[in-house]
Amino acid sequence: VGTRLFDEGRRFRIGGWWLVVTLVGVLSAAAFPRLVAAQSAWSIGPREVPPPAGASETLSEAIASAPAPDVAQGGIAIPTTEEGWLALQQDSGAVSLDALSAQLSVSIERDEIDGVTVYRVTPDQLDARHDGHLFLPVHGGAYVLGGGDGSVGEAATVASRLGIQAVSVDYRMPPAHPFPAAVDDTVSVYHRLLQTHAAASIVIGGTSAGGGLALAVVHRLIADGVDTPGAIYAGTPWADLTKTGDTLFANEGLDRVLVRYEGLLEEAALLYADGRDLKDPLLSPVYGDFDRFPPTYFITGTRDMFLSDTVRTHRKMRVAGVAAELNVYEAISHAEYLILADSPESKQAFDELGDFLRRHLP
Amino acid sequence: VGTRLFDEGRRFRIGGWWLVVTLVGVLSAAAFPRLVAAQSAWSIGPREVPPPAGASETLSEAIASAPAPDVAQGGIAIPTTEEGWLALQQDSGAVSLDALSAQLSVSIERDEIDGVTVYRVTPDQLDARHDGHLFLPVHGGAYVLGGGDGSVGEAATVASRLGIQAVSVDYRMPPAHPFPAAVDDTVSVYHRLLQTHAAASIVIGGTSAGGGLALAVVHRLIADGVDTPGAIYAGTPWADLTKTGDTLFANEGLDRVLVRYEGLLEEAALLYADGRDLKDPLLSPVYGDFDRFPPTYFITGTRDMFLSDTVRTHRKMRVAGVAAELNVYEAISHAEYLILADSPESKQAFDELGDFLRRHLP
Repeated sequence: VGTRLFDEGRRFRIGGWWLVVTLVGVLSAAAFPRLVAAQSAWSIGPREVPPPAGASETLSEAIASAPAPDVAQGGIAIPTTEEGWLALQQDSGAVSLDALSAQLSVSIERDEIDGVTVYRVTPDQLDARHDGHLFLPVHGGAYVLGGGDGSVGEAATVASRLGIQAVSVDYRMPPAHPFPAAVDDTVSVYHRLLQTHAAASIVIGGTSAGGGLALAVVHRLIADGVDTPGAIYAGTPWADLTKTGDTLFANEGLDRVLVRYEGLLEEAALLYADGRDLKDPLLSPVYGDFDRFPPTYFITGTRDMFLSDTVRTHRKMRVAGVAAELNVYEAISHAEYLILADSPESKQAFDELGDFLRRHLP
Repeated sequence: VGTRLFDEGRRFRIGGWWLVVTLVGVLSAAAFPRLVAAQSAWSIGPREVPPPAGASETLSEAIASAPAPDVAQGGIAIPTTEEGWLALQQDSGAVSLDALSAQLSVSIERDEIDGVTVYRVTPDQLDARHDGHLFLPVHGGAYVLGGGDGSVGEAATVASRLGIQAVSVDYRMPPAHPFPAAVDDTVSVYHRLLQTHAAASIVIGGTSAGGGLALAVVHRLIADGVDTPGAIYAGTPWADLTKTGDTLFANEGLDRVLVRYEGLLEEAALLYADGRDLKDPLLSPVYGDFDRFPPTYFITGTRDMFLSDTVRTHRKMRVAGVAAELNVYEAISHAEYLILADSPESKQAFDELGDFLRRHLP
């Protein structure tokens, strides 16, 4: 082992990557040394990362003019009481529907389906190629925020960009309604939509917790023997509530939206799971079985802390033979294709989502 | 601008990502503040990155048992003389073809086509589904290393895994033969292969500089009005010889194969380009036009310093309507799907490459 360890160490220490490339096949992973105990974490950096010259001017300038993420401060202070959470939720849902309607040229109608609040979004300009198609958006916000009128932002953006009808789910949230309320509410709405729409003509999806919830709902539908939607839009999905994905570590402090796992993400995961195993596939869908999943469109970025969760889910789907497509944007942090709505990256992302749906929905 | 700058700073400073997500559509990138001068680079970290729990056991254990990359030491000492380069090249090409043949169950025959050295690789087990298909591999090694008998490693691996015939190009290299010798040699061989094979039945490709060279050759073929191959295999392609890609900075010291740009990569780029503009699309293919490119299969990893070059090229292809597929592996450093040949990641990568080729070649 001593000799092998030396060889292994030396092979990488001299940076001799051409050597290992040319020796592939001769070397084998089985010959790699196994130490009794795993090494502790590598300490990487500090790195100096300039604004991304290979990204769009919009993104590069936005990053250049922004302060560096403050890892020490991290996310917001986490409420310690139920009242604190409710106040924060109310704040995050305080959006003007009139302004949103005017800005995106959509009409928004608040409604209720089987006791679940939904928002029906109709773009002024419907695209005939999406006749009969329906988008079922589930909002982001770490399962604990972004509800109420605030829940309709992404739904309105996608409806407007693609010219597609949407029925957006304002699912119940903790602390009053932890898991599985979000899944239950979305499944309820889906069942009612099946009375007027073919399953294959529906696309379910969203960003962040919305992407994760869409995947979880499809796990549930398959378990229940219900026809799945025709497609999934999984925008940088929170597919794993545990701190497992490598980019949760590697992109800490580089992702200017999420910044770090400790704080909001960690607390929200525990609050939502309400004592259940965080690796339950209905909470962390990456741990599920993807055998019968519909075509799925993934979007993430190289600076995204959920890059790992996105690519891990994509890989599992491809191994299962699912028509899953992965799209990674240069230097994009978590959900920035949505946040920087006027960037070329955002335009590309939703143009291509539309193209994907038109290829896969009837 | 003062108020807006405050808003922008505050929005990210409080980590209020749910807020910006819900406000999307109301906010617009046009409202983002523009500073007179771009900020300098962000200093990120140091981060503590544990072995990747979401990767395969093989990869995770290989990383856990390896020393952390040494950024200060970086790559190898760069030769300062032509003799020094030639000695290094000879060393990197010193591979036993007999051992490779036995290990991978292939026969390897050294040959010459129009003055270019090639290696004809025939697997003992040909897959009938690849009848008539031909793999045209171009080796990695930063355009300056990995030639000679060492050039056949990846060719033999792919031929063996897929059961496909290969004709591997041992193109000329600097210092004696800088750009465009590598492109010229590969194009010469391709033209001769067209005498016995339909263009559509050929897949050109490789890893690292090999991936980049494959893309450059297709740029040249399109410019010359020659029929392109039926598909491209672009393994973590060196698609940009300049230090532009964001992950050259972000994954410095995390990618245990490349480690950093300064040193071998930078010197090799200059040696190969021989005074030409590094952004010439035949040197840095990401800057070219991808309109008429054939279906292309991309492989990279979240720790790969060429992650950015890979996703930037994939994006440009998708925008151009090319049938390009992106696959990103959790915690894989540059070319590790090739280096850790016995890992599940490696098996997945080549199984799926075969599947991709069978979908796109006649």
